[in-house]
Amino acid sequence: MNGFIAVHCGAGYHSDSLKKEYQKTCYNACRKAAETLKNGGHAVEAVEKAIIELENSPLTNAGFGSNLSWDGLVECDASLMNGQTLHFGACGAVSNVWNPITLAKHLCIKQCDNLSLGRVPPCILTGQGAQLWAERMGIGIVENKKMISARSLRNYKHCKRKLKRYSLQNDIKFSPLDTVGAICVDSNGVVASGASSGGVSLKHEGRVGQAASFGSGVWAVMSRDNKKPSVAACTSGCGEHLIRTQLAKNTAESLLEASPILGLDKCFKEHFLESPFLWDVPERLGGTLALRFDSDIGEGELLWGHTTKTMCIGYMSTQNERPKCIISYLPPKVEPGQKAVVSGRPFKVPIQPCPVLQWEIKTAPNCNGSL
Amino acid sequence: MNGFIAVHCGAGYHSDSLKKEYQKTCYNACRKAAETLKNGGHAVEAVEKAIIELENSPLTNAGFGSNLSWDGLVECDASLMNGQTLHFGACGAVSNVWNPITLAKHLCIKQCDNLSLGRVPPCILTGQGAQLWAERMGIGIVENKKMISARSLRNYKHCKRKLKRYSLQNDIKFSPLDTVGAICVDSNGVVASGASSGGVSLKHEGRVGQAASFGSGVWAVMSRDNKKPSVAACTSGCGEHLIRTQLAKNTAESLLEASPILGLDKCFKEHFLESPFLWDVPERLGGTLALRFDSDIGEGELLWGHTTKTMCIGYMSTQNERPKCIISYLPPKVEPGQKAVVSGRPFKVPIQPCPVLQWEIKTAPNCNGSL
Repeated sequence: MNGFIAVHCGAGYHSDSLKKEYQKTCYNACRKAAETLKNGGHAVEAVEKAIIELENSPLTNAGFGSNLSWDGLVECDASLMNGQTLHFGACGAVSNVWNPITLAKHLCIKQCDNLSLGRVPPCILTGQGAQLWAERMGIGIVENKKMISARSLRNYKHCKRKLKRYSLQNDIKFSPLDTVGAICVDSNGVVASGASSGGVSLKHEGRVGQAASFGSGVWAVMSRDNKKPSVAACTSGCGEHLIRTQLAKNTAESLLEASPILGLDKCFKEHFLESPFLWDVPERLGGTLALRFDSDIGEGELLWGHTTKTMCIGYMSTQNERPKCIISYLPPKVEPGQKAVVSGRPFKVPIQPCPVLQWEIKTAPNCNGSL
Repeated sequence: MNGFIAVHCGAGYHSDSLKKEYQKTCYNACRKAAETLKNGGHAVEAVEKAIIELENSPLTNAGFGSNLSWDGLVECDASLMNGQTLHFGACGAVSNVWNPITLAKHLCIKQCDNLSLGRVPPCILTGQGAQLWAERMGIGIVENKKMISARSLRNYKHCKRKLKRYSLQNDIKFSPLDTVGAICVDSNGVVASGASSGGVSLKHEGRVGQAASFGSGVWAVMSRDNKKPSVAACTSGCGEHLIRTQLAKNTAESLLEASPILGLDKCFKEHFLESPFLWDVPERLGGTLALRFDSDIGEGELLWGHTTKTMCIGYMSTQNERPKCIISYLPPKVEPGQKAVVSGRPFKVPIQPCPVLQWEIKTAPNCNGSL
């Protein structure tokens, strides 16, 4: 079976010393997803597998090793959108769930369920309620301290020290890597998108960012009539600014233009760098990884764009032997947050189109009936 | 000083026996907001004042007397959007905060703040973290049992009994009233929108609905160049479906068309009743209260639309002696969720245009500096 996967491990600043490790993480994530796709797995499952790999890495700001909150806790956001059903599942500010993307996937799948008394399954769960739901679904729970890596604890202490030393208004900023993400086309031409984030360093408890907000962190819409291509996107950057600009939805939809690369470039300008919603934001930091796919010819384009210094990306088609992993840089003299760099690659996926919209993942966990 | 306020206490089904009380609640909410506007209050404050009145009523599904969750708790969502700054503040699944809209307002106002180390103030806070933030801001906290009214407890017990008595798949549905909301134009022509909701009955703990989701529960964008009118909207209905369809943003933007009433009607059709995002939803229940305002001529239109059986609305200009409160009905033979009824009224507000975008509410509470 065929498919295409692309992942990123955050738009931000990737230090030279860790460059190879970031690329290796993306490499591994692509391999895991490609394996799922080769075995006939659904795009939603492939996205989940890729992001589990990214979450499990202590290098990324997602799952294990996430940025710590003000009180020194790990609280994660994650979401997943299925371009076939257009369902969205998200968890926000959730602690103790080892793989938040798995929780988001289950919330997304359960959107198909009918509950008693005409109730509707939740699409966004947060905090302790989200953790409780995960437990009921048999999703792995750990103690919060097990989510903390040596590196994230060091960063936390460093930031707290800095706060003590400097006055409230200062120019010393940390630019951590943000949300990780994955987008995918499977052997039926289904597209999906996922994102996972530990949020900003020293964030207030309970804060929810773009990785759990509809239209902001992920977007995936499969072509329903072959007139328009399928599109998907996942974003990274300052959560509050990506919420205001709904960057995932906007960048995905910009690829529907005749030239997707020009569309994406225009979108970054109009909907981000010059967005009226960011009038009071001096540095507009964000990135997107997006794709469009024409299922009738089995061809697509992967695109990415970012206003941050770097963005680390990996991608592979199941027909490739191994993933390609690159670090994309802003041009040398461009200050982050002022301009976007936009680039892309074509890809091919010979697919067997799937005409049925009412598709459900067979491995969906059984609900206990009442919730 | 002048201004215009419109409120609703939920799209759903308003029983005949309580009709007068619902109208009275809307009446009081309009009076409170109009008082604020007459005293030169900002649209954001007027919206807050109106919604506090709606939250404090035991009849509405917001604040005191909200629907109870599966475990018998009150967990509220609320949000506020300032059309002048385009800032959005929201709290989700928050317990023990007597007026969730006040928390949302403070989150919205604090978007103007600069935090140390280049951190960004949170725009969405949920659960215990949201409660903690409210406490730090001096916002009123109460025990959870004080948020429960005799009526909401009775409903909860009734629903739980029903669940025991009937099988999982059944046709017995409760159609509770959902989110309340308010939209406003103040004496400077600033528009704002707010929403507050206790969410669906027997919801899972931690569930966040449209009243805390960007673009779904509230929308407000003030004209920046007098070329386009200012618009605002707030929605009510099934939270998950309003998130998927981003009904607040879509209905507000539909009023920019040459004929706002035709624009709204088309929007309900394309973005709600026939939305691809609701392909698997048999009953599409929702409502919107929206306005457009041309500040150069001081004239506007209030519009509402709903696919639910009823929607209870109140509105007044500061030039009117008292508010008008009506219950809007679907035509007799139309089944809820299948068609929308759309209606409207013109209004006038002589204004003093405010050219400054960098406006801040003077009463914004002081932050303790570190959070």
